[in-house]
Amino acid sequence: MAVKYSRNHEVAYYECDVNQTMTFPAMIGVAIKTSEEQSDALNRSAEFIHRFGLTWVITNYHFQIQRLPKVGEKIQITTQAMEYNKYFCYRNFWFHDEEGNELLMIESVFVLMDIENRKMASVPEEIIAPFESEKIKRIKRFKAIPKISAGKSLPYRVRFYDIDSNQHVNNAMYFNWMIDVLGFDFLTTHVPYEVNIRFDKEVEYGNEVMSHFEIVTDNGIESRHEIRIGEQLYCEANILWQTKELEK
Amino acid sequence: MAVKYSRNHEVAYYECDVNQTMTFPAMIGVAIKTSEEQSDALNRSAEFIHRFGLTWVITNYHFQIQRLPKVGEKIQITTQAMEYNKYFCYRNFWFHDEEGNELLMIESVFVLMDIENRKMASVPEEIIAPFESEKIKRIKRFKAIPKISAGKSLPYRVRFYDIDSNQHVNNAMYFNWMIDVLGFDFLTTHVPYEVNIRFDKEVEYGNEVMSHFEIVTDNGIESRHEIRIGEQLYCEANILWQTKELEK
Repeated sequence: MAVKYSRNHEVAYYECDVNQTMTFPAMIGVAIKTSEEQSDALNRSAEFIHRFGLTWVITNYHFQIQRLPKVGEKIQITTQAMEYNKYFCYRNFWFHDEEGNELLMIESVFVLMDIENRKMASVPEEIIAPFESEKIKRIKRFKAIPKISAGKSLPYRVRFYDIDSNQHVNNAMYFNWMIDVLGFDFLTTHVPYEVNIRFDKEVEYGNEVMSHFEIVTDNGIESRHEIRIGEQLYCEANILWQTKELEK
Repeated sequence: MAVKYSRNHEVAYYECDVNQTMTFPAMIGVAIKTSEEQSDALNRSAEFIHRFGLTWVITNYHFQIQRLPKVGEKIQITTQAMEYNKYFCYRNFWFHDEEGNELLMIESVFVLMDIENRKMASVPEEIIAPFESEKIKRIKRFKAIPKISAGKSLPYRVRFYDIDSNQHVNNAMYFNWMIDVLGFDFLTTHVPYEVNIRFDKEVEYGNEVMSHFEIVTDNGIESRHEIRIGEQLYCEANILWQTKELEK
């Protein structure tokens, strides 16, 4: 049974949007901070990983949201390294309210990248052992992300503050570009309940990305997203929404 | 003697830029959260103020920085409502490190705005009394902010996440636009030690602002900033910098 780690967090006003609920970048921020704290506690800090010439890269998130955390709310974030195979590490996050109700769950995929050649590296036992996650053979598949057939797009320049203290464009930023294109009216009348996102390639400082999107209403309300520079795909996602009146 | 209020904060990786130090939006975020907590503790929450048909607006910040807070560092933020006159409330913030050394100080000016007519309102005793700040007659003047003579500029669109749960463009965002124009090379070789900023007019969602700037090196290193839409000025600032080698 893998080791769980929890921390408490009070949702600040600056972590919330006009809906009074936490933004995706803020949720990812506190989630990743929780996993960093666990890694530090197990002596597997980013610095330790760097000694192997490696660094963690996140390739996927899958959110299942019952209710978004609200401004002022005290929440608990729990994380657990679930399973790993030769190349992929699967980590879950759970957000709970003060009464212990689950607010949301995030499944994620982490890989180790060789800092020199920027290629994916196999997972050394010495790095992964303290998390006591289960070694598996198979590769877990996340839901397919549907392509955009005919979308609109807006340009976004990567800003200085989009690069965090880990020296990379924080992948929480992709959410900023994907959410923004949907516009005020949509975003204040709809609530997300499922998100599937894949990071394909790393955007760099100074890049101008295009945030492409399409809203499909064949079967519920779905927004589809692609972050591209020219034809090159950097990130793709889809988000399932319900209207606010129907909110659980 | 006015009432002081303090809170502790651990600086998260997502609050820091590539220099491993806290961004201006993050510093303003935790400062304002501290003053909101004090107001709540004294039963003078935003909701209480709204009952008077009023809302707080910040018009000025003046930062004096000895050292920027670092990633992972445990800091303490203290605030105190210092003085007020008919229209202006003067509030200070101090950031200290774990050893009690002052990292930075922010002087600020708050005014009350009538929510209906969007005009400045005089400060009711009932709102201000619990803070036990000193009533003064004079208007405290902040340092003049020099105008730009011949600058460059970049455009920024106000994004959905730039509006916070207080329903306004968070004034911390202006820093995002002002800092970004200075570029990676400047920002990784210089450290700010004084900032003077004035908010003249409120930017709205959907606006595209121009972030004008000029670097003047007559007497030390100074960046001058103006956020404008066309000829209309929304925000002006100047920042004094030292090169990283000379950092205190």
